[in-house]
Amino acid sequence: FLKNRSEIPIPGDKVGVVKVYGIIRSSDKYLEFLDKLERNKTVKAVVLRVDSPGGIVGACQEIHDKVKELAKKKPVVVSMGSVAASGGLYISVPATKIVANPGTITGSIGVIIQTYNVSELIKKLGIKVVTVKSGKYKDLLNPFEKPNPEKIKVVQSLINNSYEQFVRAVAEGRRLSIEKVKRFADGRVFTGEQAQKLGLVDYLGNFERAVEIAKKLGNCPNAKLYFVKPKRSFFERLFGEKTE
Amino acid sequence: FLKNRSEIPIPGDKVGVVKVYGIIRSSDKYLEFLDKLERNKTVKAVVLRVDSPGGIVGACQEIHDKVKELAKKKPVVVSMGSVAASGGLYISVPATKIVANPGTITGSIGVIIQTYNVSELIKKLGIKVVTVKSGKYKDLLNPFEKPNPEKIKVVQSLINNSYEQFVRAVAEGRRLSIEKVKRFADGRVFTGEQAQKLGLVDYLGNFERAVEIAKKLGNCPNAKLYFVKPKRSFFERLFGEKTE
Amino acid sequence: FLKNRSEIPIPGDKVGVVKVYGIIRSSDKYLEFLDKLERNKTVKAVVLRVDSPGGIVGACQEIHDKVKELAKKKPVVVSMGSVAASGGLYISVPATKIVANPGTITGSIGVIIQTYNVSELIKKLGIKVVTVKSGKYKDLLNPFEKPNPEKIKVVQSLINNSYEQFVRAVAEGRRLSIEKVKRFADGRVFTGEQAQKLGLVDYLGNFERAVEIAKKLGNCPNAKLYFVKPKRSFFERLFGEKTE
Amino acid sequence: FLKNRSEIPIPGDKVGVVKVYGIIRSSDKYLEFLDKLERNKTVKAVVLRVDSPGGIVGACQEIHDKVKELAKKKPVVVSMGSVAASGGLYISVPATKIVANPGTITGSIGVIIQTYNVSELIKKLGIKVVTVKSGKYKDLLNPFEKPNPEKIKVVQSLINNSYEQFVRAVAEGRRLSIEKVKRFADGRVFTGEQAQKLGLVDYLGNFERAVEIAKKLGNCPNAKLYFVKPKRSFFERLFGEKTE
Amino acid sequence: FLKNRSEIPIPGDKVGVVKVYGIIRSSDKYLEFLDKLERNKTVKAVVLRVDSPGGIVGACQEIHDKVKELAKKKPVVVSMGSVAASGGLYISVPATKIVANPGTITGSIGVIIQTYNVSELIKKLGIKVVTVKSGKYKDLLNPFEKPNPEKIKVVQSLINNSYEQFVRAVAEGRRLSIEKVKRFADGRVFTGEQAQKLGLVDYLGNFERAVEIAKKLGNCPNAKLYFVKPKRSFFERLFGEKTE
Amino acid sequence: FLKNRSEIPIPGDKVGVVKVYGIIRSSDKYLEFLDKLERNKTVKAVVLRVDSPGGIVGACQEIHDKVKELAKKKPVVVSMGSVAASGGLYISVPATKIVANPGTITGSIGVIIQTYNVSELIKKLGIKVVTVKSGKYKDLLNPFEKPNPEKIKVVQSLINNSYEQFVRAVAEGRRLSIEKVKRFADGRVFTGEQAQKLGLVDYLGNFERAVEIAKKLGNCPNAKLYFVKPKRSFFERLFGEKTE
Amino acid sequence: FLKNRSEIPIPGDKVGVVKVYGIIRSSDKYLEFLDKLERNKTVKAVVLRVDSPGGIVGACQEIHDKVKELAKKKPVVVSMGSVAASGGLYISVPATKIVANPGTITGSIGVIIQTYNVSELIKKLGIKVVTVKSGKYKDLLNPFEKPNPEKIKVVQSLINNSYEQFVRAVAEGRRLSIEKVKRFADGRVFTGEQAQKLGLVDYLGNFERAVEIAKKLGNCPNAKLYFVKPKRSFFERLFGEKTE
Amino acid sequence: FLKNRSEIPIPGDKVGVVKVYGIIRSSDKYLEFLDKLERNKTVKAVVLRVDSPGGIVGACQEIHDKVKELAKKKPVVVSMGSVAASGGLYISVPATKIVANPGTITGSIGVIIQTYNVSELIKKLGIKVVTVKSGKYKDLLNPFEKPNPEKIKVVQSLINNSYEQFVRAVAEGRRLSIEKVKRFADGRVFTGEQAQKLGLVDYLGNFERAVEIAKKLGNCPNAKLYFVKPKRSFFERLFGEKTE
Repeated sequence: FLKNRSEIPIPGDKVGVVKVYGIIRSSDKYLEFLDKLERNKTVKAVVLRVDSPGGIVGACQEIHDKVKELAKKKPVVVSMGSVAASGGLYISVPATKIVANPGTITGSIGVIIQTYNVSELIKKLGIKVVTVKSGKYKDLLNPFEKPNPEKIKVVQSLINNSYEQFVRAVAEGRRLSIEKVKRFADGRVFTGEQAQKLGLVDYLGNFERAVEIAKKLGNCPNAKLYFVKPKRSFFERLFGEKTE
Repeated sequence: FLKNRSEIPIPGDKVGVVKVYGIIRSSDKYLEFLDKLERNKTVKAVVLRVDSPGGIVGACQEIHDKVKELAKKKPVVVSMGSVAASGGLYISVPATKIVANPGTITGSIGVIIQTYNVSELIKKLGIKVVTVKSGKYKDLLNPFEKPNPEKIKVVQSLINNSYEQFVRAVAEGRRLSIEKVKRFADGRVFTGEQAQKLGLVDYLGNFERAVEIAKKLGNCPNAKLYFVKPKRSFFERLFGEKTE
Repeated sequence: FLKNRSEIPIPGDKVGVVKVYGIIRSSDKYLEFLDKLERNKTVKAVVLRVDSPGGIVGACQEIHDKVKELAKKKPVVVSMGSVAASGGLYISVPATKIVANPGTITGSIGVIIQTYNVSELIKKLGIKVVTVKSGKYKDLLNPFEKPNPEKIKVVQSLINNSYEQFVRAVAEGRRLSIEKVKRFADGRVFTGEQAQKLGLVDYLGNFERAVEIAKKLGNCPNAKLYFVKPKRSFFERLFGEKTE
Repeated sequence: FLKNRSEIPIPGDKVGVVKVYGIIRSSDKYLEFLDKLERNKTVKAVVLRVDSPGGIVGACQEIHDKVKELAKKKPVVVSMGSVAASGGLYISVPATKIVANPGTITGSIGVIIQTYNVSELIKKLGIKVVTVKSGKYKDLLNPFEKPNPEKIKVVQSLINNSYEQFVRAVAEGRRLSIEKVKRFADGRVFTGEQAQKLGLVDYLGNFERAVEIAKKLGNCPNAKLYFVKPKRSFFERLFGEKTE
Repeated sequence: FLKNRSEIPIPGDKVGVVKVYGIIRSSDKYLEFLDKLERNKTVKAVVLRVDSPGGIVGACQEIHDKVKELAKKKPVVVSMGSVAASGGLYISVPATKIVANPGTITGSIGVIIQTYNVSELIKKLGIKVVTVKSGKYKDLLNPFEKPNPEKIKVVQSLINNSYEQFVRAVAEGRRLSIEKVKRFADGRVFTGEQAQKLGLVDYLGNFERAVEIAKKLGNCPNAKLYFVKPKRSFFERLFGEKTE
Repeated sequence: FLKNRSEIPIPGDKVGVVKVYGIIRSSDKYLEFLDKLERNKTVKAVVLRVDSPGGIVGACQEIHDKVKELAKKKPVVVSMGSVAASGGLYISVPATKIVANPGTITGSIGVIIQTYNVSELIKKLGIKVVTVKSGKYKDLLNPFEKPNPEKIKVVQSLINNSYEQFVRAVAEGRRLSIEKVKRFADGRVFTGEQAQKLGLVDYLGNFERAVEIAKKLGNCPNAKLYFVKPKRSFFERLFGEKTE
Repeated sequence: FLKNRSEIPIPGDKVGVVKVYGIIRSSDKYLEFLDKLERNKTVKAVVLRVDSPGGIVGACQEIHDKVKELAKKKPVVVSMGSVAASGGLYISVPATKIVANPGTITGSIGVIIQTYNVSELIKKLGIKVVTVKSGKYKDLLNPFEKPNPEKIKVVQSLINNSYEQFVRAVAEGRRLSIEKVKRFADGRVFTGEQAQKLGLVDYLGNFERAVEIAKKLGNCPNAKLYFVKPKRSFFERLFGEKTE
Repeated sequence: FLKNRSEIPIPGDKVGVVKVYGIIRSSDKYLEFLDKLERNKTVKAVVLRVDSPGGIVGACQEIHDKVKELAKKKPVVVSMGSVAASGGLYISVPATKIVANPGTITGSIGVIIQTYNVSELIKKLGIKVVTVKSGKYKDLLNPFEKPNPEKIKVVQSLINNSYEQFVRAVAEGRRLSIEKVKRFADGRVFTGEQAQKLGLVDYLGNFERAVEIAKKLGNCPNAKLYFVKPKRSFFERLFGEKTE
């Protein structure tokens, strides 16, 4: 009773759905899901459901690249849920169209690193941290020594470079000028309604609205929904956790 | 013994029941349940049982939109339980009729964000937080720096925009003027009895009362109740957690 | 071995028993149990066993309404256990007769809300709470700001309205004048013996006494007891938790 | 392998045994056990084994009433274990005979309520508790306000009434005058030996002694012991918890 | 595979062994084990293995009484392990013979009650404890009020009475005069070697020595050992906890 | 699949091995193992593997007595592992020969009792401990009262008596004079190498060395090793904990 | 149903994939995986997916050596994920080609040891640490004594030697001069984009890009992906943890 | 399905591999593994993989002795992983050849004992520790009394004796003079590269390198690897923990 449950193929046209929920820590499964929809001939359009406050830069970039590639072959409609900010927006911009709720929280374009510096705390406690190292930047953001401007400059340079990459992605994906994007790309957040006025969102509406638009763009009015999800193990199926 | 237990169809007219209990964090399952009742021809009316202090703006809006669409096709009666405030009210207003207990806690129209600011605490403890970022608003509501009026203005703008959306939804759903709604839409709470006087509630009574009204509106005096609930996994069925 | 254990019907007259134990957080299962007894023709009388310090207003009102409706059709005898105060009394008053132990703790008629206000504590700790909101009452009883008389007035109005509903229910159920009820409806507690003198209790005695009275009122001297309880799942039956 | 293990009937005369161990929180199972022994014709006498420091007034009264009723029909012998004080004594007094170890701790006749009052603690911590209520006694023994003599008087009245009920029960059960009982009913504890001199205990000896006396009183010298215990679930039987 | 494993009877003469290990909280299982050995005809002598620092007075007395009764019918030899003090000694004295290791810790004849009094602590913390009660001794040893000499006198009287019972048991069991026992019955501890000189122990040696003596007293040189232990449940047998 | 796995008998000569690892809290299983080897005719010699810092006096004495008895019948070789001090040495001295690693930690001849006295701590905290007792030594080493010289004298007498027993056992087992043993029996520790010079160890080497010596002494050059271990339950066998 | 699931061989050309995720604590499984790909004739190229902040020096060196050996026989393409810094870079440099995301965090060339020194803390607490040792450096970085320059020099010498090994590995692997590498081998981090300019990365792109390059270098345009992963046990397969 | 999985014999020449990972607390399983390889005729050479910071003196000595014995019969090659210091080095020195990574951490020749002394802490807290003992050194390193020079001398003597044993083992195993070893046997650590220069290591390289050398020394170029590991229980096999 343990053989792999093969996903039963649904006949006829389909709108593929991939859900990106929570913090984005890895791109692996999303690349796999999107690739599956790309290769499946009966999938006429894709809805990417995003409900995420962002995540790690590298992982978001890998998904972004894949969405961009996919959108060249089939219409991709993003449906923003309660929040699609920072990296959640990063992965959305290469889509064909973006649909958001009027109250969706989006925006927050930028890159940030925060670390605790406990040098004074440990001094009070009577703790010293002995660091033996081979290069002056090997302990960047060392939480046990006073913040050091020279080291912070090294990190700021990394942040700036990533930020420029983000802005270029938004400008290119939403067909806006770099200048226009930079005007609001200062980390601020918007409602979906406000984002629409800035050109970050195409339509207001819920998930069902996004599906309708995808059907129209894919010329498949009778398409069924096809949710791509990770293969669940025997016990997950028993316990019933679902990705949708 | 593991095959999917198919829901056995009940013959004859039905009043569909969907329960929204606790904090509303996601709209997914509710859209699915309501869609099921919308498509089922034998369901003549729907009771939406609400016992919730509210939730996330985007999720409530998605449910609100779906209830609104559904109410165009079949009568929808909301039965408020012990509490149906804030987002719990948001999702209720597009219903055909609202029934509440005299002691139901409702109202609380408005939007709120609360965050801890621990800048002084960590200073006392001897902790500094080093923030390296790419835009001045990237750390909105940064809990480790003194509250900053400029940043709060950005958040207040988001709140105000969401609030206007909420007021419009109440006015439209309950057929009240925007002015009238704004008079009591200052976050205050009411009992069901008080809410009735303000026009937010149509009738006083318990869940059974709501069912009776639904039967009358749906012209189905002999309809049976049909509770829509998530498919439970094998173990949940073993352990017996129920949504009703 | 997993099919649903159908409740085996007991032939002959029956006295139905429903137990309300602990804090009353939801009315769902009690409405269902009482409805079952109402519809069952062989149930000639009902004993409502109450051992509860009260609960949420809305849930108690829903049970109260159902008991009231049931008592119109069959005799309902309440058997008070160790405590039946506040909401535990609320649901008892519409019964045909009330039996209590001499030492039962009852009374406590009234409504109360208690919240912690930690504005000074967090100030000492060096924490500020930043609240961004859309209406002055949206943060009623905000635990992070000094108690605000204007906001408390809003809550007191809610409490008063619920209190009047409670008093009306006691007066009507126990056939006492509103004035008489208000004389002792100041939150105080009584023993069963004292409550009898005030007219809140009809007889002193234990659960068996209540059953005897129910048999007499229902004209069914040979009735058997029929305990209504939630369907237990496979594992609960294994582990043996019981509602009685 | 899961069908209900029916209790195999023991043929011939029996001495029924019920054990009351630990704090008495509910009367349900004891009423059921004692009722079973009352109805069983082959049970000629009952031993109530008590090893309890007491419990909740209402629950003890319900057991007391049941023991009293049972003792009218069959001899009931109480065997006191290490401790049978307060409520443990309350349920013992209506028995036909009481047997205790010389070192059994018994007595402690009286009623007590203890609560923490933390009004000064929370003031030191910078916490206020906001109480919105509908009657001045609704927050009896409110732990967050200074103890209030008027409120304590309400509670003392409840205690006194319960105490009188306790004294009456002891006097009646042990056939002593109210005056005599009140002389030592000031909460003090005794050894079994001391209690015998006061008339609270009939004989000194262990559980086996109590069984012998029960056999004599029930005229059943060859009776077997029959321990009544809750039906154990499948897993309890696996894991082997026992009530004896 | 779940049927009760019946204890396979060993044919021929037997020396029964009962182990009393750890703190003695209840007498139930020991009475049962000793009774089993008393009734079994093939058991010619009993070894009571004691490795216990004592326990609750009442429970020890019940075991003591049973050992005394048993020793009238068959020789009972106590084998003291690492410690057999206080209640561990109490249950040993009625045996026919006592064997101890030279380093066994024994003695500690007496009775003691210790309680925390935190009246000053809670005052410092800003906590008051409100006590509402019906008799001045109802809160004997109340940890929240200053120790009260009058109340301590009540407890001392209980202790003294229990102590006299203990001394009488030692004197009678070891055939010593009350005066002699009182000379060392001041709570002090002894090694087995010292105890032998005081007349509390008959022989020095380990468990095997005790078995040899039992065989001699029981005239059963070829007897096998028969360990009485609680029936273990299915899982205990799986997991292998053993009483020996 | 649950029947008791009978230990498959190994044919031919055997060297029995018993392992004493960790703190020695009870003698039961070791007496049983050693007895098994004593009775088995095919066991020609025994290796007692000791890796223990000691344990409880009584338990060590029981094992010591058994080893002494066994060594009268068959050669017993002790193999000391990383540590064999205090009680670990106590059980080793009656062996025929002792083998230790050069770095084994041994010695520590003596007896010690350590207890916390928190009388000042609890005074600081505002806690008093009320002690009601029947003899002045009943609370020997009472941690809540100032250390009392008179009580300590009672404990020292116990220690001294146990110490003399230990010294006698070492002298007798290693065939040294009491005077010689006392010279180094002051609690100090030695390496195996140092212990050899003092006459406490016969040979240096690891476990394999001990086996070789046992084979020579038992005249069984081809004997196989036979590890005695507790019967493991079904689950232990599943989970694979081993005593060797 | 427990027999070892043999990995089903995929016919035709393959690109082998090994994933190195998280902190590198041991080289064992990676050596095994890479060896498998080296020996498999149908594997024409290898993609080493790296998402790691580094690890232990020795483990990284063992993987580095194996990658170097493998790259002599088949093209090896590294795909850097979100982070491939320090040891994550160490294992990447011997590859044929390196592909990174523009936002990948890489660099951090160097070696570091950090330890807590709590000598002052424990002095404040009233704790001393007694160290008995045989050589002055036996307690290098002893956290309980003041940091000692002489001991730190011993550790610095170890660090410097390891650092030189790291620099040599980068220079050789990326075909850069030692001088050039040392210019940026001061522990600083780079984005993938910045690293490309320094010669540490060959191409920018995601995992799919790396696969394409591997296919080109291996002359196997139609190769399938072959993920090497640890054999999963029966339960892991049930619970569905995956290495990819 | 539970029978013991017999290790399937691999035909042909073999290189046996034993892994010593983590802190060495016991020698038992290693003696067993090495003995197995010693007795197996088809094992032509042995690789001892060491990744350990050391352990307990006695356990390391037992493994050391066994490695020494084995190396007399078959070539033994040690492969040092990330760390092989202190006891990890102790067990390596008798091998035929030692291979280390250039970055392996080794050295740390010496013996150390560290204990907390909390005499001042407990005085501050108001705790006294009462010690009753029989010899002045029975409480060596007593953490509750001020460190005592006389007692430390006893421990230092133990340390010194163990240290001399360690130095002799290194000198003999690596064929170095005692003087030469003592020059660097002061507890300091080295990289593998540095250790090679000191004569502690023969070759630099990873595990595969060590296997190649073993094949050459054992004249078995086609030998297969044979990993000796503890028999795993049924569940370990299910859960898949492996020793390699």
